[in-house]
Amino acid sequence: MDTRIEHHAKIIVEWSTEVKPGDMVAITTSPAGHDLAVAVTKEVARAGGIPTTLMASEEISRAFFDGASDDTLQILPEHQKAMVEKCDVMITIRSPQNTKAMANVDPKKLMMRNRTVQEISSIRLSKRWCLTVHPCTTLAQQANMSLDEYQEFVYNATLIDWQEESKMMYVMKEHLERHNDIRFVGPETDLHASTEDRIWIASDGKHNLPSGEVFTAPVEETVEGKIYFDIPFLFGGKVIEGVRLSFEKGEVVDFSAEKEEPTLKEILEIDEGSRRLGEMAIGTNRGIKQHTLNMLFDEKIGDTIHCALGRAYKENNGTNESAVHVDMIKTMIEGEVIAGDEVIYSKGKYFYEK
Amino acid sequence: MDTRIEHHAKIIVEWSTEVKPGDMVAITTSPAGHDLAVAVTKEVARAGGIPTTLMASEEISRAFFDGASDDTLQILPEHQKAMVEKCDVMITIRSPQNTKAMANVDPKKLMMRNRTVQEISSIRLSKRWCLTVHPCTTLAQQANMSLDEYQEFVYNATLIDWQEESKMMYVMKEHLERHNDIRFVGPETDLHASTEDRIWIASDGKHNLPSGEVFTAPVEETVEGKIYFDIPFLFGGKVIEGVRLSFEKGEVVDFSAEKEEPTLKEILEIDEGSRRLGEMAIGTNRGIKQHTLNMLFDEKIGDTIHCALGRAYKENNGTNESAVHVDMIKTMIEGEVIAGDEVIYSKGKYFYEK
Repeated sequence: MDTRIEHHAKIIVEWSTEVKPGDMVAITTSPAGHDLAVAVTKEVARAGGIPTTLMASEEISRAFFDGASDDTLQILPEHQKAMVEKCDVMITIRSPQNTKAMANVDPKKLMMRNRTVQEISSIRLSKRWCLTVHPCTTLAQQANMSLDEYQEFVYNATLIDWQEESKMMYVMKEHLERHNDIRFVGPETDLHASTEDRIWIASDGKHNLPSGEVFTAPVEETVEGKIYFDIPFLFGGKVIEGVRLSFEKGEVVDFSAEKEEPTLKEILEIDEGSRRLGEMAIGTNRGIKQHTLNMLFDEKIGDTIHCALGRAYKENNGTNESAVHVDMIKTMIEGEVIAGDEVIYSKGKYFYEK
Repeated sequence: MDTRIEHHAKIIVEWSTEVKPGDMVAITTSPAGHDLAVAVTKEVARAGGIPTTLMASEEISRAFFDGASDDTLQILPEHQKAMVEKCDVMITIRSPQNTKAMANVDPKKLMMRNRTVQEISSIRLSKRWCLTVHPCTTLAQQANMSLDEYQEFVYNATLIDWQEESKMMYVMKEHLERHNDIRFVGPETDLHASTEDRIWIASDGKHNLPSGEVFTAPVEETVEGKIYFDIPFLFGGKVIEGVRLSFEKGEVVDFSAEKEEPTLKEILEIDEGSRRLGEMAIGTNRGIKQHTLNMLFDEKIGDTIHCALGRAYKENNGTNESAVHVDMIKTMIEGEVIAGDEVIYSKGKYFYEK
């Protein structure tokens, strides 16, 4: 087996989920993620954990929606719930074969099913959990790379010394939490918000792998100013690019996009919360050097910040509510991140790199 | 999708497991079985059932044994147990990528794990369950066929009118149960046993798919005579062929094999029960025209009978106990099956085909 897959598995089991003897572990994988599932199974067993493997694929999900009536969509999967309740650790390996298989499912049916299984999702989030990616041709293609290049890309982002990384991210969190506001300054950009009583979270390879972001939920009604997001991103199968937003009293009062502006408009009209920010964050992973239209990676790119329209996280003490959470990313190599009177990041350097 | 896969899925869901609204269904598949899992998911959803998909592969099983200590092997998977308890239906799709991945696992460790999960296996057997095969290159290779030929082979055996088939098999069961003994006669063969108080079971596409056998557990100490099994079979990765056995008072008193006789000897020496018969059965599936070293198919071949050394099934009122259950098959095209004074099968014809 590729030693990088074994290394990846070790990080998932030892660092991200800290499996210990007697832990009940669920590993969810697609067919393409099988090799990483094998390596993770071995590491879980070595750590004394008891693995069970679940299969997820876009085509299987699609088949369920194609077959199920509205009544069926509203039945809770009691067997899944029973399993998740008994789990200590849940590991999810994403390695899709067709990222578009769900594209033509009626969003109302998706919403209906999401509401039904919400209860299980909440239990899941109360466990030690980790979401990661196993390189596959489908994701390589989406990233405009060969499989070989894409493997390099994924492992450069993932197989790093998370303990070291974590230390620096926690220093950044402490600095950010000394202050009550955050400000992003750069080309066509000057955006600020209050972060009073909000929590900054250092995402250091636990729940997301790769990780590398320090994020909070701003006090949504205090967001003021304008911002230009230069990195493209996916929403509902569409690639939106070059988004410009202006905020007054927390609400988007002006917007444009260089590509797919109508889709941006749709997002802003979903609900009241989708016109406000639910997240402001600083990407810190220097192993990720380019965007690949995969948010798990893109929002972590070093020398970037990102903001999300929509739902805020409770863990941040966030309060903005929305049916969506749409991340948008900005390169900061010519910009600055300022908290209170302290420069957190300036033109290619985090404060701890001075 | 191949319409044969859809037809297969319909039989599994409508006939074999009779999924109904609100049923909690677990579908276990390997990566190679993904397409059938997709089709089964759709049918389960159509029937109003709620599917969850589990992944099983030989390499994942092997990785667990490679990583686990003896202590770990003795921990019950509580999360699996919780799920299985909540299931109404369990569907298992076999489509291996490497049938030899488990070959070099210490049998003591396998035994240890089997004992640990015995409790879960028992719960599983109390549900509506079905074991089937999805054609794949690995099984085609084992059967000495191209994938195309193997698909034909599997679907000829599986996509039949089980309702019709079932009727004939139940008639055979009734005829067999009118009598208190069973006798297999043919070239180099005259074997008989009492079947008093034993139950004949018509395997008509419910638990095994394909199916097609009517089987019982003989009163083990009454087995007398000799038998020649001409069809080769696998045991522990070895192909045993041309087995001759002689029984006195239920016990094997003489044996030989044209190939792998030492392995046959090993089987007979496993325990006391492995020298006695746990099963005597009549294969009835005329869709299966050749053996493929896969017992799920081979024991069902039309114009054959089979006997198993070792463990008897409780469902037959069987009492023989053993760590193994080893099926051996005999072509009966020149033979006869007789119960009491009634000829059940004679030289190419079942009694109901007269």
